[in-house]
Amino acid sequence: MTKEQTWSQRFESALHPAIARFNASIGFDIELIEYDLTGSQAHAKMLAHTGIISSVEGDQLVAGLEQIRQEYRQGKFQPGIDAEDVHFAVERRLTEIVGDIGKKLHTARSRNDQVGTDTRLYLREQIQAIRSQLREFQRVLLDIAEDHVETLIPGYTHLQRAQPVSLAHHLLAYFQMAQRDWERLGDVARRVNISPLGCGALAGTTFPIDRHYTAKLLHFDTIYDNSLDGVSDRDFVIEFLCAASLIMVHLSRLSEEIILWSSQEFGFVTLKDSCATGSSIMPQKKNPDVPELVRGKTGRVFGHLQAMLVIMKGLPLAYNKDLQEDKEGLFDSVNTIKASLEAMTILLQAGLEFCPQRLAAAVSEDFSNATDVADYLAARGVPFREAYNLVGQVVKTTIAAGKLLKDLTLEEWQQLHPAFATDIYQAISPRQVVAARNSHGGTGFTQVNQAITTARTQIGE
Amino acid sequence: MTKEQTWSQRFESALHPAIARFNASIGFDIELIEYDLTGSQAHAKMLAHTGIISSVEGDQLVAGLEQIRQEYRQGKFQPGIDAEDVHFAVERRLTEIVGDIGKKLHTARSRNDQVGTDTRLYLREQIQAIRSQLREFQRVLLDIAEDHVETLIPGYTHLQRAQPVSLAHHLLAYFQMAQRDWERLGDVARRVNISPLGCGALAGTTFPIDRHYTAKLLHFDTIYDNSLDGVSDRDFVIEFLCAASLIMVHLSRLSEEIILWSSQEFGFVTLKDSCATGSSIMPQKKNPDVPELVRGKTGRVFGHLQAMLVIMKGLPLAYNKDLQEDKEGLFDSVNTIKASLEAMTILLQAGLEFCPQRLAAAVSEDFSNATDVADYLAARGVPFREAYNLVGQVVKTTIAAGKLLKDLTLEEWQQLHPAFATDIYQAISPRQVVAARNSHGGTGFTQVNQAITTARTQIGE
Amino acid sequence: MTKEQTWSQRFESALHPAIARFNASIGFDIELIEYDLTGSQAHAKMLAHTGIISSVEGDQLVAGLEQIRQEYRQGKFQPGIDAEDVHFAVERRLTEIVGDIGKKLHTARSRNDQVGTDTRLYLREQIQAIRSQLREFQRVLLDIAEDHVETLIPGYTHLQRAQPVSLAHHLLAYFQMAQRDWERLGDVARRVNISPLGCGALAGTTFPIDRHYTAKLLHFDTIYDNSLDGVSDRDFVIEFLCAASLIMVHLSRLSEEIILWSSQEFGFVTLKDSCATGSSIMPQKKNPDVPELVRGKTGRVFGHLQAMLVIMKGLPLAYNKDLQEDKEGLFDSVNTIKASLEAMTILLQAGLEFCPQRLAAAVSEDFSNATDVADYLAARGVPFREAYNLVGQVVKTTIAAGKLLKDLTLEEWQQLHPAFATDIYQAISPRQVVAARNSHGGTGFTQVNQAITTARTQIGE
Amino acid sequence: MTKEQTWSQRFESALHPAIARFNASIGFDIELIEYDLTGSQAHAKMLAHTGIISSVEGDQLVAGLEQIRQEYRQGKFQPGIDAEDVHFAVERRLTEIVGDIGKKLHTARSRNDQVGTDTRLYLREQIQAIRSQLREFQRVLLDIAEDHVETLIPGYTHLQRAQPVSLAHHLLAYFQMAQRDWERLGDVARRVNISPLGCGALAGTTFPIDRHYTAKLLHFDTIYDNSLDGVSDRDFVIEFLCAASLIMVHLSRLSEEIILWSSQEFGFVTLKDSCATGSSIMPQKKNPDVPELVRGKTGRVFGHLQAMLVIMKGLPLAYNKDLQEDKEGLFDSVNTIKASLEAMTILLQAGLEFCPQRLAAAVSEDFSNATDVADYLAARGVPFREAYNLVGQVVKTTIAAGKLLKDLTLEEWQQLHPAFATDIYQAISPRQVVAARNSHGGTGFTQVNQAITTARTQIGE
Repeated sequence: MTKEQTWSQRFESALHPAIARFNASIGFDIELIEYDLTGSQAHAKMLAHTGIISSVEGDQLVAGLEQIRQEYRQGKFQPGIDAEDVHFAVERRLTEIVGDIGKKLHTARSRNDQVGTDTRLYLREQIQAIRSQLREFQRVLLDIAEDHVETLIPGYTHLQRAQPVSLAHHLLAYFQMAQRDWERLGDVARRVNISPLGCGALAGTTFPIDRHYTAKLLHFDTIYDNSLDGVSDRDFVIEFLCAASLIMVHLSRLSEEIILWSSQEFGFVTLKDSCATGSSIMPQKKNPDVPELVRGKTGRVFGHLQAMLVIMKGLPLAYNKDLQEDKEGLFDSVNTIKASLEAMTILLQAGLEFCPQRLAAAVSEDFSNATDVADYLAARGVPFREAYNLVGQVVKTTIAAGKLLKDLTLEEWQQLHPAFATDIYQAISPRQVVAARNSHGGTGFTQVNQAITTARTQIGE
Repeated sequence: MTKEQTWSQRFESALHPAIARFNASIGFDIELIEYDLTGSQAHAKMLAHTGIISSVEGDQLVAGLEQIRQEYRQGKFQPGIDAEDVHFAVERRLTEIVGDIGKKLHTARSRNDQVGTDTRLYLREQIQAIRSQLREFQRVLLDIAEDHVETLIPGYTHLQRAQPVSLAHHLLAYFQMAQRDWERLGDVARRVNISPLGCGALAGTTFPIDRHYTAKLLHFDTIYDNSLDGVSDRDFVIEFLCAASLIMVHLSRLSEEIILWSSQEFGFVTLKDSCATGSSIMPQKKNPDVPELVRGKTGRVFGHLQAMLVIMKGLPLAYNKDLQEDKEGLFDSVNTIKASLEAMTILLQAGLEFCPQRLAAAVSEDFSNATDVADYLAARGVPFREAYNLVGQVVKTTIAAGKLLKDLTLEEWQQLHPAFATDIYQAISPRQVVAARNSHGGTGFTQVNQAITTARTQIGE
Repeated sequence: MTKEQTWSQRFESALHPAIARFNASIGFDIELIEYDLTGSQAHAKMLAHTGIISSVEGDQLVAGLEQIRQEYRQGKFQPGIDAEDVHFAVERRLTEIVGDIGKKLHTARSRNDQVGTDTRLYLREQIQAIRSQLREFQRVLLDIAEDHVETLIPGYTHLQRAQPVSLAHHLLAYFQMAQRDWERLGDVARRVNISPLGCGALAGTTFPIDRHYTAKLLHFDTIYDNSLDGVSDRDFVIEFLCAASLIMVHLSRLSEEIILWSSQEFGFVTLKDSCATGSSIMPQKKNPDVPELVRGKTGRVFGHLQAMLVIMKGLPLAYNKDLQEDKEGLFDSVNTIKASLEAMTILLQAGLEFCPQRLAAAVSEDFSNATDVADYLAARGVPFREAYNLVGQVVKTTIAAGKLLKDLTLEEWQQLHPAFATDIYQAISPRQVVAARNSHGGTGFTQVNQAITTARTQIGE
Repeated sequence: MTKEQTWSQRFESALHPAIARFNASIGFDIELIEYDLTGSQAHAKMLAHTGIISSVEGDQLVAGLEQIRQEYRQGKFQPGIDAEDVHFAVERRLTEIVGDIGKKLHTARSRNDQVGTDTRLYLREQIQAIRSQLREFQRVLLDIAEDHVETLIPGYTHLQRAQPVSLAHHLLAYFQMAQRDWERLGDVARRVNISPLGCGALAGTTFPIDRHYTAKLLHFDTIYDNSLDGVSDRDFVIEFLCAASLIMVHLSRLSEEIILWSSQEFGFVTLKDSCATGSSIMPQKKNPDVPELVRGKTGRVFGHLQAMLVIMKGLPLAYNKDLQEDKEGLFDSVNTIKASLEAMTILLQAGLEFCPQRLAAAVSEDFSNATDVADYLAARGVPFREAYNLVGQVVKTTIAAGKLLKDLTLEEWQQLHPAFATDIYQAISPRQVVAARNSHGGTGFTQVNQAITTARTQIGE
């Protein structure tokens, strides 16, 4: 224990250096410094506002904290491992700057409510940034979708071609996922934006503080109603990590598709040089590193969610040191989400090109129009399951003959069922197959155009 | 493959029996049968409403489905492994009952949108049930809190006694957690209550269906706007599992405390015979099985959350068979949450008694009033950090002397600092220590009484 | 609490029925009954052997337990929820059968060491079964590999075609994974096969028992050396769940490949009707349900691993009720592994056919022989990185010209570098590209044939 | 893309700067540099040994790589983000040092087998370091145990006092866990220590390399037998993370106990100043930060295990960029394990003192000798379950009377059962209760002394 340790008076001997290193959080909680300064300034103003300290003292504290902010931004204030954590580092520097008055800053406050405040300020800002990135991601999806309303792509279930769809429709599915992510983060933000400041170590304080005042200065929506809960609640971290995991689920699904699409076998997209990498040994290679990495990073965010749940499980009230472990996983998740969203947005916008020929070929050389034959009959009064069975048979014999449905003669169709007429050929052309799925939310072009319009409105364009 | 398999016509040979067993979901998705019937009835009504089938046909289908419901409830309809899944089991039985018209039910629908509908109807109902249980849990917490506003209990940080608090205040922290759980489930419910019915296999349908009509019949708030998204979205399951994990986090924390409190060392509560169990070998044992099991079951729900995230990671659009794995973990989580909430509510209400003597002794024999000495000085103008350091010293010497702070003479206090007066003794009595923390959300009795009143209102009492 | 509860005498009032239900494990630990009977028989024999009970008593207990085994197998012994757990159920039935002597069975034993013994006996047997299944899976892989040593398939990195490989070589990679699984389970088995019997509740026993005697009767390798550790150790469950997770990782990778290979785009394999399923709405579909389900079930086993880790985290010594939660996840993981291995083995053996034309086409129409051009130059003295760069250029210009490397004239080659001679054409033919990778463990045919021979030996054929 | 990118020739335009940042691993894989240099030196020697390059060239490469090692150690070689990864950074610097000959280093090698080699060399060394730390941890446990063979401490099940035990016996349970950890890491090490070098990108190489030669130089036990498996296997990372998770499970259990023991309620240990920290606001606090942090860090390691499983799930062969995500979690787990073991070892050795009075009081004031009364009767012919029930009754009435078992008169004992004699008082004294559990592995002093001797031998002392 160095002389400086703020909690030193009850202690006789110094902290073992390895233990000091083990305990210290300054290595990562320095990330919170600006939020800590802002929170401390609000606290100082409140202390003055309520008369707990004088206004002169309040002004000195606020100014001193501002000076630390400048020093930090200029790289002049770089607390080392002996600082234990960012809060002590700031308090100590403050006392160097403003003298003994600095020792009044911690009146009616504890590190427990302080770090909770910092973390919430940090996360609130990050959520805002991520939501903006989601909007940009959606915008890019919409731009591409607009160009591809009438581009057809096989629609898959079980990775088997099922029914052709509009490429725009396919991309809009990801727009919807991002929309839920955006909304979900909004819900999370409501539970992040609650002030624990003034909860003290665990029980509140004996000073006549005004928690609503600091909450207002820091733009919190409201305050924690129970001090024990206020200092020990990390629900908001877990809820964010769950929302973050879902973002990664969505990005990993899109990544998987782009990886498939850019394979030689699919060939639906070409990666541009600006977003692909090569091999150290195989000169022909062009690898989809971005979607692969995003897919891989998904595990990382899931891991952080799981870690945080494990940390919280079975912790007695109120604050426990285990909670110090909430930060690194949170910071890394925020950084991973932001980097992944950025990379995927760039990839979509500038890194890949759809290949019209390959797509056109893909939708015309299989049996993905079989459902339309069944629907054709069902629309003419044949019970669906019966129609379905008839078509199953014709698919089987047509495959055996090495043909496609469009190759059948009208006679062959009518042998199957007298309800068939020449319009069957139109009904099973890929374009018509797509156009006809005009139910709400379906892939029919009318629907897709409408969906794009709605989507533009949703993101405020 | 049995003759009955609905998708049999394109297939020539039967499914391998072990594979049939491996694929079948009827063993667990039978849990969805009533939701499946309800969903199918709405679908049939819509088909008639839009003229896709006749009203007579619609009525027959609805009546046939209702008959299956009765048969199921009476134990007469018990589909076996050969049924593959609950949807086929119902469709087949329906055709037995109403004849060929039964084969029209699946018009303009796929199992993909159907199972999504069923799962959402199921989960919507379960969430409602769990929210009711949370309310009951909160009510019991409030009842106990009301009896214990002025009962003191040590407040802990790091499991070290920090400052005494009102027992009611401590219990109200759990009220707040449950309140967040209740609100969070409300947010989840909004994203559960969206109809995928009519999304078809993946692309919508060629039939002139009315998705809003079925949504209204089934009390969905709205419908999925993109068919690919509608059939492949499982965000709502994951979001529920995250909310469920948080409920378990909270229950596990309370469990941990009850386990501690009922140990011989703490002795704060006594378990009643109705909620404790014995040992097979140690006749004196009385074990807190309920909170231990709840704590253990926490891992199970975390595991299901993780499993579902893993399932979804990197799945290409749209439906994949992997999604069949969404159900067992969901059902087990729902059942675990409901059983755990029930058991904990019973335990609180009827299974434990607080021990006033042990609690009273606990709050008067330690140094958990030290902060109040520092606050005492700070309120008299001594900078907080300086006051804190002074008190650190006095604690050290008092411990060394085998005394408590209340044992110091006024002279000794004044040697420490001249600001001390006789009111220091009152200031450091446990009752006053608690009463004085009267900041908003603090443990002061005024605050706690106010919090109980607010809480009653929150749960609508 | 019913009259029958074995720990009833210190308790005055009955267990709340909901709590009894919550606590009871009989619903799932009945799975352990045969292991419990075997363990109890060994315990009874030891009690007689050491003179703690008489031999007549020992014989009566063993016979009574054997009778319960027969009753259970014949469906006559079916303990209900009131039995609490399988151990009490057995003890109670035993006392009905043999009278008061049955009450001596639990001498010098506790449920804590008893359930640990049962679980180990169960898991030991299951591991043996799974290892046999792994051998069968390996055998089937080898059979297919033998038929396809000279069948070429594109080898991928980043899902981009990299270098063609022998199909046998590709399948042998899975043989190797299974081989590690088999070995790993062997290591796990060593740590499973240790007897906790005789550790008592936590501290050993005052009776002169002989733990080595029961261990020998039950074929344990050794015994736990510390009683506290013996009753609270669940490392072996976690270690098994990790090994199980790795099996699922491997099966999920193979599943992913089979799903890709059976897509229209790859077309490398055709699924047979006996191992594929159809769609309820799209008559042409043939879905790879088995690999999809296996891939999905991977999440489930990961979840159980995570759950068990969470359960154990931070549990104080020795036994805690949380440990009751070890069973369902373990049983489900065992069942999932066994069903997945069975299904994948059937799928490989009887459910898919490789398509030689598609494979042959795939390896001859791309640039996956580019490395061989670089190697060709490097083997002729050009520094590798320089050769690599030259080939990168030629690939670029060849793609631009819409050609493949084999289409270049000798003149063009020599313009690139004078070291090229006519043997370049042979060097870049797919067959030669594969054959030439004759380094140890490489895909060259000589290597692959050798690998098959070695593999046959490894599995004891 | 900068000019320097090794795979640049097939690419026309530069990599987008944000994508370059996203892809780069140099920020963390620099940790592998020394292993990379060692691996490359072995590769260069092999190239010379097999005549693929000349011996002069081989010597130059080895010397150049050694120079880089020195430059790195002296802080002169610090590759930046433009280096993409550590392998390219080294190769480029090498070419600067030795000229064009440096471009030959990558002959017959790929980054895929190279990074696999580096990671295994790293992990092999780390496992060795962790095993040494485990030995030190065990040594400290044994030292404390030796001092406390006859110190009694309550033994718990369900955190209820069950039977008193020797403190040494309790600590030896952790010795056993560490012993399993040590052995398990040994098993993991066998599967880590296999060389993938020479597997090439995925398929082996056309050069006449000697994989056994490099394996021998690098002290690998053996080599991968299948090149596709060799470059894509990460089982060894997962297996290590599982072993690491189990170490954390054990440390978290010990941490939980130390936290409990150092609470005011238990009071079994006192934390020394060198290993405890204070509060920023409560001057009396002395917090067990070390065990709390260790307990918290448990979640982190579980999270990394889960992340790695998620990354591997469903990846097609062979190398995919997702695998780049294997490193940070692995490095952080290694660092966490090492720091946690170090901190816990220091804590045990120098940071806490057991409090004999509190412990002595704890074992003499409860009913944890009740089993011994039942055993007393059972040893005198009363069936165990009957004896158990009798004692259950006497415990109940004795509690009601506010007494302990030792307070009962002989007459009272004999009223209960005539078999009681005066030796009952000795039988139920804490010391005798412990001493009598002399079964193998039990807490009896003879057993414990024997266990310590065995343990000393196990760790080679």
